[in-house]
Amino acid sequence: MTRWPLPQPMALALEQARLAATEGEVPIGAVVVKGGVVIATGRNAPRARHDPTSHAEIEAIRAAAQVLANERLDGCELWVTLEPCAMCAGAIVHARIAKVYYGASDPKGGAVEHGARVFEQPQCLHRPEVYAGIGESQAADLLRGFFRERR
Amino acid sequence: MTRWPLPQPMALALEQARLAATEGEVPIGAVVVKGGVVIATGRNAPRARHDPTSHAEIEAIRAAAQVLANERLDGCELWVTLEPCAMCAGAIVHARIAKVYYGASDPKGGAVEHGARVFEQPQCLHRPEVYAGIGESQAADLLRGFFRERR
Repeated sequence: MTRWPLPQPMALALEQARLAATEGEVPIGAVVVKGGVVIATGRNAPRARHDPTSHAEIEAIRAAAQVLANERLDGCELWVTLEPCAMCAGAIVHARIAKVYYGASDPKGGAVEHGARVFEQPQCLHRPEVYAGIGESQAADLLRGFFRERR
Repeated sequence: MTRWPLPQPMALALEQARLAATEGEVPIGAVVVKGGVVIATGRNAPRARHDPTSHAEIEAIRAAAQVLANERLDGCELWVTLEPCAMCAGAIVHARIAKVYYGASDPKGGAVEHGARVFEQPQCLHRPEVYAGIGESQAADLLRGFFRERR
């Protein structure tokens, strides 16, 4: 059996997640793509950076905005291994990310298809296209493995 | 008539908002207080910093976490001139801020008493005490004046 290969941006996001785990951080990774090119990567690092906002998506979005020298990431895609939380979904709106691709769903902390459902609020001033489930099992396995080792 | 004086942290947050306006940024300011002492300030700066996450609350929370060398701001208060958006409300949860005091309500972008109502979600894993309306008119006047000048 040949497994259908993951799109390259999700493979890179998973690599970022694995890196986070080696650093003792919850393994979540993200990349920002513009015009088919990866312009920024990010991984979860709140402990090491002493920064509660240091989620993979925030790190990738901030890095991409520096690369483009613009607070708006028009026409960009965000690829992230886990369903974004309310903070990250809000940042995606502010950054005007065009498309969001995520791996595993997160019933506990997610705010796209769960909880605050940030993009579905009537007041939401920018709605990205959202594609879920790409690399889902790999992303979830990384998280499960990380928490199992720490229990 | 003597107007009841504003609590000092809100006066400082309003000063941060005024500073933002002089920098061409939407005038919103914030401070973090711990044990009665202001440990960090922040103001809206997404344009100058090329950073869509650069809201007053995020700036103040990140600065406070650096001061405490800890991603958790246990026992801290956040004072901010405007109702936090979904991104900032999410950051408040992640930072474990104990109390949030805000000035003006924001029906368009707020996510505390409007829209995503982040703290009211059943899945929300930390709920700060919230006090609204402190310095409300001053905060709203600053915003109105800023947008009037730009129209």
